[in-house]
Amino acid sequence: MGLTLKELTEYLATVGFECQIEGDASAIVSSVATLEDAGQGQISFLSNPKYENQLAATKATAVLVKPEIKVSRKMNLLRTADPYAAVTAAIVKLHGYRKHPQWGVSDQATIDVSATIGANVNIGPGAHIGGKVSIGDNAVIYPGVYIACRCRIGSNVTLFPNVVIYEDCILGDRVTIHAGTVIGEDGLGYAPVNEKWVKIPQVGNVVIGDDVEIGANCTIDRATLGSTIINSGTKFSNLIAIGHGTKVGEDCLFVAQVGIAGSVNVGKHVTMAGQAGVVGHINIGDNATVGAKAGVSNSVEPGITVLGQPAVPINDCRRQVAVIQKLPELKDEIRRLRQDLDRLNTQIEKNSK
Amino acid sequence: MGLTLKELTEYLATVGFECQIEGDASAIVSSVATLEDAGQGQISFLSNPKYENQLAATKATAVLVKPEIKVSRKMNLLRTADPYAAVTAAIVKLHGYRKHPQWGVSDQATIDVSATIGANVNIGPGAHIGGKVSIGDNAVIYPGVYIACRCRIGSNVTLFPNVVIYEDCILGDRVTIHAGTVIGEDGLGYAPVNEKWVKIPQVGNVVIGDDVEIGANCTIDRATLGSTIINSGTKFSNLIAIGHGTKVGEDCLFVAQVGIAGSVNVGKHVTMAGQAGVVGHINIGDNATVGAKAGVSNSVEPGITVLGQPAVPINDCRRQVAVIQKLPELKDEIRRLRQDLDRLNTQIEKNSK
Amino acid sequence: MGLTLKELTEYLATVGFECQIEGDASAIVSSVATLEDAGQGQISFLSNPKYENQLAATKATAVLVKPEIKVSRKMNLLRTADPYAAVTAAIVKLHGYRKHPQWGVSDQATIDVSATIGANVNIGPGAHIGGKVSIGDNAVIYPGVYIACRCRIGSNVTLFPNVVIYEDCILGDRVTIHAGTVIGEDGLGYAPVNEKWVKIPQVGNVVIGDDVEIGANCTIDRATLGSTIINSGTKFSNLIAIGHGTKVGEDCLFVAQVGIAGSVNVGKHVTMAGQAGVVGHINIGDNATVGAKAGVSNSVEPGITVLGQPAVPINDCRRQVAVIQKLPELKDEIRRLRQDLDRLNTQIEKNSK
Repeated sequence: MGLTLKELTEYLATVGFECQIEGDASAIVSSVATLEDAGQGQISFLSNPKYENQLAATKATAVLVKPEIKVSRKMNLLRTADPYAAVTAAIVKLHGYRKHPQWGVSDQATIDVSATIGANVNIGPGAHIGGKVSIGDNAVIYPGVYIACRCRIGSNVTLFPNVVIYEDCILGDRVTIHAGTVIGEDGLGYAPVNEKWVKIPQVGNVVIGDDVEIGANCTIDRATLGSTIINSGTKFSNLIAIGHGTKVGEDCLFVAQVGIAGSVNVGKHVTMAGQAGVVGHINIGDNATVGAKAGVSNSVEPGITVLGQPAVPINDCRRQVAVIQKLPELKDEIRRLRQDLDRLNTQIEKNSK
Repeated sequence: MGLTLKELTEYLATVGFECQIEGDASAIVSSVATLEDAGQGQISFLSNPKYENQLAATKATAVLVKPEIKVSRKMNLLRTADPYAAVTAAIVKLHGYRKHPQWGVSDQATIDVSATIGANVNIGPGAHIGGKVSIGDNAVIYPGVYIACRCRIGSNVTLFPNVVIYEDCILGDRVTIHAGTVIGEDGLGYAPVNEKWVKIPQVGNVVIGDDVEIGANCTIDRATLGSTIINSGTKFSNLIAIGHGTKVGEDCLFVAQVGIAGSVNVGKHVTMAGQAGVVGHINIGDNATVGAKAGVSNSVEPGITVLGQPAVPINDCRRQVAVIQKLPELKDEIRRLRQDLDRLNTQIEKNSK
Repeated sequence: MGLTLKELTEYLATVGFECQIEGDASAIVSSVATLEDAGQGQISFLSNPKYENQLAATKATAVLVKPEIKVSRKMNLLRTADPYAAVTAAIVKLHGYRKHPQWGVSDQATIDVSATIGANVNIGPGAHIGGKVSIGDNAVIYPGVYIACRCRIGSNVTLFPNVVIYEDCILGDRVTIHAGTVIGEDGLGYAPVNEKWVKIPQVGNVVIGDDVEIGANCTIDRATLGSTIINSGTKFSNLIAIGHGTKVGEDCLFVAQVGIAGSVNVGKHVTMAGQAGVVGHINIGDNATVGAKAGVSNSVEPGITVLGQPAVPINDCRRQVAVIQKLPELKDEIRRLRQDLDRLNTQIEKNSK
C-alpha cells in the first residue's frame, strides 16, 4: 500500500500539518526511513540540522523539510513548519502502531477465580493474575506478566512480557509498560536498631495515571504509606528507579537510567535527561529541566534548567565548567602573579632605601 | 481492628519504645499514614524536621513525635525518643508484613526430580527448579522464578516473580529478592587476544548471607573463581550492579543504581547512596559512607564519608564545591590582580626614573 | 580429572601460551583458583601487581607468573608472557564452559506453528516463540524467554531465562544474552504536540552481530526507523541502556550501567567504563576509551581516552582534578595576593608623596 505525495499531504493537513509540495505530487511513498537509509518509495525528513548534509545524497522519493531549507538539487520536497511532528504522523499513517499477538485469554495463563477481566482482553500463556485483580477492556497482557492481588488495571493497557506488578497497585487507561519493568516492589525502608536494619512494612502502593508509558526494566517502589504516583501522560525510558512515596507530575519525560529517591515531588512537564539523579524529600518545579548526569540535591524552581553535580542553573554550570577547563592556566597565572609581586616588592624596598 | 493509644503505647513499650501520651489515651487508631494523608483513625509520625509545618494541619488521630516538639494546637501525641523507629513498630503491629499467595507446590511449576524441597514451601506456577537444588522450609518461590542446578536456598526465603539464580549459588535463611533480579550471571570476564575478547569461563558462584534483602532488577555477577559474597543483614535497593568477586560486608545499605566493579572488598555497615560507583580491586572500610553519585577510585578508610568524582572526604569535597561555585568571580579577581599589578609596575618604573 | 604441570604446559603451548616450568613438572592440578583461595591441586595466577604480596602465602600447587617475577620461596611456577591469557586457557581446559540443561523442545514451551526451529535446539518450559520466528541450530532458549514474531535467531545462540526480544529483531551466531535483558523495546520517541507527548511508532529493529555477549537486565531500544546495531564480537556487562538508532562497532567492551542515547555511532574496539554516559547524535571513534562515570557530550576522536563531566581528554581531566583539589588553597593565595598588592600600593603612594 502506498500514497501519492498529494494523498499524503492531504492526510497530513487533516491532522494539522500543512505541507507545500515541491516536485512530483504523484510520486508514491509507502514507508518512512532516515535520510541515510531511505530508498525508492520511501519518504524521509530533515529536522535536526546535524543531518542537513545528508539531504543532497538521500535516495528518498521525498523529504519533509522546513520552509526555509535550501536544496542543491531537484528533488521531491514536502515543506512544513514542523517536519518532526509531520513525519510522526506519516509514520502512523504508513506503518501504524504495533499489532499484538492474539491469544484471547490463554488457558496456559493462571487467573485467580476472583479476578475480573474486561471485554476483548488478551492474556498470553504463562501470565499470572492474582486474586481480586480487575483488568479493563482491551488490555493486552503478555506472557510472563505477574499481576499481584487487588491490582486495578485500566482499559487499553499493554503490559509487555515479564512485567511484574505487586499487590494493590492501580494503573489508568492506555498505560503501556515495557518488558521486565517492576511496579510496586518494596522501597528501601528500614529503621536502624542496634546497628541492624529492621524492615518497615511497605503498606502503600503505586498509582499510575492514564496514557503513561514506562520503558523496560524500570523499578517503581510502592510507598511506605500512601502512594507513589506517576501522573497522566508521563513517559519514561528504560532502567529508571523511582523511590517510595515520590510523586511525578503530568506529561514528564524521563530519559534512561534516571534515579529519583523517595518522597520527591516532581511537577508537570519536567524533563529529566539520562542518568540524572534526585535526592529525597525535595521539589522539582513544573517545566523544569534536569540535565544529563545532574545530581540534584536541592529543590528546583519551576521553569529552571539545572546541570552539574551538585546541580545548579545551567548558565552557572557552564560558567563554572568554562573556568574549570582553564584552571591549570589560572593556577600558572596565580604563580606568576606571586613571582611578579615578589619582584616588585623587592624592587620597591631597594628603591626606598 | 484498632488499638487505643493506651494499648498501642503498651505494645510499643514491649518492643522497646517508651511513649508518653498527651491527649485522649482512649482514642482508637487502626492504621498508619503520613501527616499529609492521615485522617480519622490513623496514627502518623514526625521524624524529618522538613515536615514539621505539616503537624498543625494533619487530620491524624494521633502523632508520634519527639519529646521536645512544640505543637500549636491541642492534639493527641505520643512523645518518644525515636518516632521513626516507633512508627516502624506501629506499622508492623497495625498492618503486618506482606501475606504471600498460597500455591503450595504448583503442578504448573517445573521441578527437577533431583531437587530437595523443604516443608511448607510455596512454589508458584511457571517457576523452574533445576537439578540437585535444595530449598529450605517455608520458602516462597513466585511464578517465573528460575533456579539453576545445584543452588542451595535457605529457609524462609522469598523470591519474587522472575528472579533468576544461576547454577551453584547459595542463599542463606530469610533472604528476600525482589522481582527481576538476577543472581550469578557471568561477569565481564574476557582475555584480550589479537584484539578479540576471549571469554573466561566464570566458574565461581554467588553466596548471599542470612537476612539479606535485594531490590528489583539488580544484577550480581558470579565470581570468575571463588565467590561473590553479600554478607548477612545487608539491604540493597533496585538496579544495583555488583561485579564478579566483590565481597560486601554485613549490614550494609545500598541505594538504587549503585554499581560496584569486580574484586572490591566492602566492609561492614557501609552505606552507598544512589548512583554511587566503585572501581575494581579496592577496599571500602567498615562504617564508611559513599555519597550519592560519588565515583570512588581509591580505597576508603573505615568510618569516612566520601563524595565527588573522584570521591574525596566529604569536607574536602564541600570546600572544593564552594570554591568551584565562585570560580567565575575568582577568575575575574585574577584578571584584576594582573591589571593592578601591571599598573603598579608601570607607576614604579615611572617613579624610579 | 587432573593434569600434571607438564601436561598442562603442553596444552597451553598448543593454544599459543609457552610456559617455562619451575619446580615439580609432575605435580597435578585439577582446577583454578585465586592466590588467596587456592589450595592443594589448584593452579593460580599473578597478573595484577596489586596481588603480588599474596604470592608468597598462596597454597596453590602452582602459579602462572610473568618471567620477571621474583619469588621468595620454593614453589611450582609456570612462567609465561601473559599469565592472564594463559590462565583463561587453563580455566577452559580444566573447568570448561557452562553445560546447559537439556530440555529438548519442551512441550511446556509455546511455539507458534509458523516458527522455524533448527537442529538440536533446546527450548525450556515456559518459553514463548512467536510467529515466523526462525531459530538456528544448537540454540539454547531458557525458560521464560519471549521471542516476538519475525525475529531471526542465529545458530549456537544462548538466551538465559526471561530474556525478551521484541518483533523483527535479528541475532547473529553464537550470541549470548543473559537473564532479564530486553532487546527491541520502543525507544523514547514522542513528538511534542500542545504540551503532550505523541508517540512515534518505533518501526525499526535491533540487529546483533555474531559472538556478541550481553549481560543481565540490559535494554536495547529498537530504532524508530532502520536498525539499532551491535556489531560482532562486542561484549556488554549488566544494566546497560542503548538508545534507538545507535550503532556500536565490533569488539567493544561496555562495563555495567553504561548508557548511550540514541543515534550515536560508536566505533570499533571502544571501551566504555562503568556508569559512563553518551549524549545522542555524536560519534565515538575507533579504539577510544571512555572512563568510568564520564559524561560524553561531544564526539570523541579515535584512540582518545576521555574522562570527566563533561568528558575531556584524560590528561586534561587529571590536570583539572589536580587543580580542583587545590582550589581552597588557591583561593587563599588569591586573597593574599590582593592583600599584598594593596599593601604595596599603599606603600608606593606613601613613598611617592
